[in-house]
Amino acid sequence: MLDRVRERILGRGIRGGEVPSCIAVVISAEAVGAHWWRKVGTVAGWCTTLGIREAALFSEFFGPEKVEDLERELADVPARGRLIIGAEERGFGKGGPLRLFISAGSGGKEEVTSAIRSLLVEVKAGVIDPEAVDEEAIEARLRLNLRPDLLIRLGHRELSDFMIWQSAYSELYFIDRSWDDLKKVDFLLAIRDYQRRERRFGR
Amino acid sequence: MLDRVRERILGRGIRGGEVPSCIAVVISAEAVGAHWWRKVGTVAGWCTTLGIREAALFSEFFGPEKVEDLERELADVPARGRLIIGAEERGFGKGGPLRLFISAGSGGKEEVTSAIRSLLVEVKAGVIDPEAVDEEAIEARLRLNLRPDLLIRLGHRELSDFMIWQSAYSELYFIDRSWDDLKKVDFLLAIRDYQRRERRFGR
Repeated sequence: MLDRVRERILGRGIRGGEVPSCIAVVISAEAVGAHWWRKVGTVAGWCTTLGIREAALFSEFFGPEKVEDLERELADVPARGRLIIGAEERGFGKGGPLRLFISAGSGGKEEVTSAIRSLLVEVKAGVIDPEAVDEEAIEARLRLNLRPDLLIRLGHRELSDFMIWQSAYSELYFIDRSWDDLKKVDFLLAIRDYQRRERRFGR
Repeated sequence: MLDRVRERILGRGIRGGEVPSCIAVVISAEAVGAHWWRKVGTVAGWCTTLGIREAALFSEFFGPEKVEDLERELADVPARGRLIIGAEERGFGKGGPLRLFISAGSGGKEEVTSAIRSLLVEVKAGVIDPEAVDEEAIEARLRLNLRPDLLIRLGHRELSDFMIWQSAYSELYFIDRSWDDLKKVDFLLAIRDYQRRERRFGR
């Protein structure tokens, strides 16, 4: 009841300001329950209501035995989803304005490494010159071609090797709560905090 | 006076616990005064007293016109220092147990990019096979071959593109203060906070 009142007040304030276009949420194994995917739809709904256009979730913990099972479990999520597990990528969700990415177990160093490997193959094949390889060339080969405005970390205060390249200038926000216990109020407080910051991108 | 008392109490508590072996401090242009290097010696002293063995400072702002001038300014710093500016690297400091790295303007994406470029050259020359390139191969070619246990960010709550690869699992701590105003008490509070965390490295 009290939460509802707070949600309304927070929501009203937030709609007056600039909402992050892209967010990332890092939920590592410990902060995740056995059925983490059941909450994905709820959080996708929060994002959509606020006008967030892209969201990336990271969990080290996979869950179901097969990718197909997880994909099926996520079928009703109100988003255009991509599920990334290792080198595999699958679609899920029932569509909507939100582009949602779920990375189950694929970390940032691995992502940068595989971008590099594909560059190496191109160099060996003579398609690209080593001199021509710059930050943009690497960025273009990352699996998650996103730039989170806000990165929310649940449970701990470290990045846990997610989107290390893309989050170089992301605003960081920590919530000391598990994924299962995450409330809309917590989420709204993170967005409000973001709105109060003056972004400088390192300058 | 009050600060001294707090320093003593904090210091005593800290010595009973595990001190981070390696720290990183991110101070971007805004949080840095015109003569930021004058404080380097003081902070190096704090690190040494606590038993910190490696520290890396990042400032986007260079300062003096010539590298040699900055090197001279830093001559009395109680540490074995390396000054990194672009591709240049110079020694400074009067020695001691602390290895101190100062990166003036060289960001993390640039660092990873140049590690990749050197790998690409080796691949083109046939020295390495693209298949053999893994996270360790990249890590070994980074300018700063460190792994910060604790990353302290002054002024803002984003990483500001410093050591993006190396800080994947660093504990993050924010201090809302400029470099010039940073007090020993702030620094000790960061270390104490670190000691109270349970590190999980994403697990």
